[in-house]
Amino acid sequence: MATVKLMSDAEAEATPAVKAVFDDIRATRKTDFINNFWRALAFDPALLARTWQGLKSVMAVPGEIDPKTREMIYVAVSMANSCSYCVHSHTAQAKAKGMSTAEHAELLAIVGLAAQTNHLVTGMQIPVDPEFLV
Amino acid sequence: MATVKLMSDAEAEATPAVKAVFDDIRATRKTDFINNFWRALAFDPALLARTWQGLKSVMAVPGEIDPKTREMIYVAVSMANSCSYCVHSHTAQAKAKGMSTAEHAELLAIVGLAAQTNHLVTGMQIPVDPEFLV
Amino acid sequence: MATVKLMSDAEAEATPAVKAVFDDIRATRKTDFINNFWRALAFDPALLARTWQGLKSVMAVPGEIDPKTREMIYVAVSMANSCSYCVHSHTAQAKAKGMSTAEHAELLAIVGLAAQTNHLVTGMQIPVDPEFLV
Amino acid sequence: MATVKLMSDAEAEATPAVKAVFDDIRATRKTDFINNFWRALAFDPALLARTWQGLKSVMAVPGEIDPKTREMIYVAVSMANSCSYCVHSHTAQAKAKGMSTAEHAELLAIVGLAAQTNHLVTGMQIPVDPEFLV
Amino acid sequence: MATVKLMSDAEAEATPAVKAVFDDIRATRKTDFINNFWRALAFDPALLARTWQGLKSVMAVPGEIDPKTREMIYVAVSMANSCSYCVHSHTAQAKAKGMSTAEHAELLAIVGLAAQTNHLVTGMQIPVDPEFLV
Amino acid sequence: MATVKLMSDAEAEATPAVKAVFDDIRATRKTDFINNFWRALAFDPALLARTWQGLKSVMAVPGEIDPKTREMIYVAVSMANSCSYCVHSHTAQAKAKGMSTAEHAELLAIVGLAAQTNHLVTGMQIPVDPEFLV
Repeated sequence: MATVKLMSDAEAEATPAVKAVFDDIRATRKTDFINNFWRALAFDPALLARTWQGLKSVMAVPGEIDPKTREMIYVAVSMANSCSYCVHSHTAQAKAKGMSTAEHAELLAIVGLAAQTNHLVTGMQIPVDPEFLV
Repeated sequence: MATVKLMSDAEAEATPAVKAVFDDIRATRKTDFINNFWRALAFDPALLARTWQGLKSVMAVPGEIDPKTREMIYVAVSMANSCSYCVHSHTAQAKAKGMSTAEHAELLAIVGLAAQTNHLVTGMQIPVDPEFLV
Repeated sequence: MATVKLMSDAEAEATPAVKAVFDDIRATRKTDFINNFWRALAFDPALLARTWQGLKSVMAVPGEIDPKTREMIYVAVSMANSCSYCVHSHTAQAKAKGMSTAEHAELLAIVGLAAQTNHLVTGMQIPVDPEFLV
Repeated sequence: MATVKLMSDAEAEATPAVKAVFDDIRATRKTDFINNFWRALAFDPALLARTWQGLKSVMAVPGEIDPKTREMIYVAVSMANSCSYCVHSHTAQAKAKGMSTAEHAELLAIVGLAAQTNHLVTGMQIPVDPEFLV
Repeated sequence: MATVKLMSDAEAEATPAVKAVFDDIRATRKTDFINNFWRALAFDPALLARTWQGLKSVMAVPGEIDPKTREMIYVAVSMANSCSYCVHSHTAQAKAKGMSTAEHAELLAIVGLAAQTNHLVTGMQIPVDPEFLV
Repeated sequence: MATVKLMSDAEAEATPAVKAVFDDIRATRKTDFINNFWRALAFDPALLARTWQGLKSVMAVPGEIDPKTREMIYVAVSMANSCSYCVHSHTAQAKAKGMSTAEHAELLAIVGLAAQTNHLVTGMQIPVDPEFLV
């Protein structure tokens, strides 16, 4: 159970500031589905609106990195930050954007390897090679 | 300063098990440069060999994810795990493999956004939507 | 399910070292409720006693920071450390000590923002400004 | 050394999108000082602008939590996320906004205690008390 | 629910690359029990095989650190990385290898203390004593 | 540079509450060396005294886990929490208590492996096997 109340569609209808964000999420994502993250954030309409704007400006505009890869990077960070919900939601979105089973396996392998060497590096307190400094 | 001694090329020459790994790193990466991570791991030749084999099997074989993107995912995990050396070394490698300034900025933006929402999700303890469970 | 057995009040009655701590928790907090954290720690009465003394000396004595704010800082750290139980218990305690819905939303916003910029800073490996060094 | 180039004031003068943000930082904070975080982010003017807007909307508008406490929460998160630069910069800002030595000590004590119990809770995998679920 | 499908013994029978690893796990551990970690990794037989080889080479060969202590160190890291499944599985294995209740309590106490002082150190940004540098 | 002032021996002489702790550290550890962690904490004598008592009660009393292993577990946690100073200080102490080079290598290998599988587990969201629940 969440530490805040999740807002239903009926409640959102009665809260214009929330309804406006929910409508924009639906229009942007071309789906009627609003996942629980947004229903939870709706307990504070201003926080909801700012968070959605922030996410939209990074994830929903054309850019150098393709949408599938963006979601895969999101999954990588969520794994490192140990966020269960985030791993579920962004793995689902990466799959929806075309991540294959082979890509999923490679992603997990890279994240696991990075975590291993991150810890080894921290344990050995390795000085940065001058070659890496521009 | 590191918590272990970094091995010079002269010392590696006198340690066949280390020399074999250093030679393979040079052949695989097509460069004479051996960065400090490997020179540190060399304090234990078996750990060095296993770590290199692990990294090679994930990062240096053809796969679904292109080499540049692999390094960018590595950077993302290293940021989340707060590994200074790793951020330096893998940012350098991502650039060497073609990461543009615009891609670098997008990568940082995605990682920052993911960290923000990871923390929000954990703070609200959001239940996983049934839609995300296959 | 926990990795240790949670101690019931009946069992605590039969374990004087645990009962003494449970009694002090009840007297200090002016409530009969003992939450699962203490029932779990009770598997080792010495660890229970030391942990309670540590927490009591920081959280239950008058100081410069008011009790509500202390709990809000506790929630912030628990979010960053991804501790689900801790987020639940300290959010509940912050609310019990007067945290409003608006304050809760601001707390989440600050923690999310800090996490975002923490990750950006680590990704860019920014040198500390001399102005920040006293 | 940073993984991106820090922008000087001279360079910012020649980059209108950066200059606009630097000007707003100076006006909002009523100081001529621009710290390295913003000079680093300036390598991507759009990322700089969005990050500043995000920070400004959370930290620089009146709200329920006073400015000093906001900085103290920021420090707490930065400690948990092991961000050296962030600890330096936000400790300096908390002090500038009135954090006393005694408050600093209490802040550190609360964060340390929270980290300790966060880890204990995770080690014992404690189930959430029904009393904490609203 | 997992983000990948867990492989049953029946399915493993039909996937020789998986069956080979499952057989080796059973032979190495002298038990018929295959825990969910391996059943999940089986979605990618190559990732399964490499991960098992890595774990086997560290945890299942004779060395300087006894098997019980290895599992206790594993638990410590899993607590710090906030991995619920890992805490459960490696606490169970540490107990199976002889960890007493008193040792379990000491382990938790050390990890909790380390986390507390880790955070204090990061909050105070303490310079390394020259005495610690070899 | 630290965010608090490090206390010299001369200053400690003039601060009885600090001098008492420094004296006890010296007597307990049988050395005249006071490392920077304690000199930093001395900015708040009460925090110093409580932190030292906490550490002493866990690390400096006889128990089930031998002193060398305690320090090795401390190093493991410090690696996972990315605490540079802590890795330095506790690696030095583990070596002073007898950790061999081979044990150091095994420790690093176990921590790296645990980090790798911690991240894989989080990425796959593996359900806990009923066999692990007592």
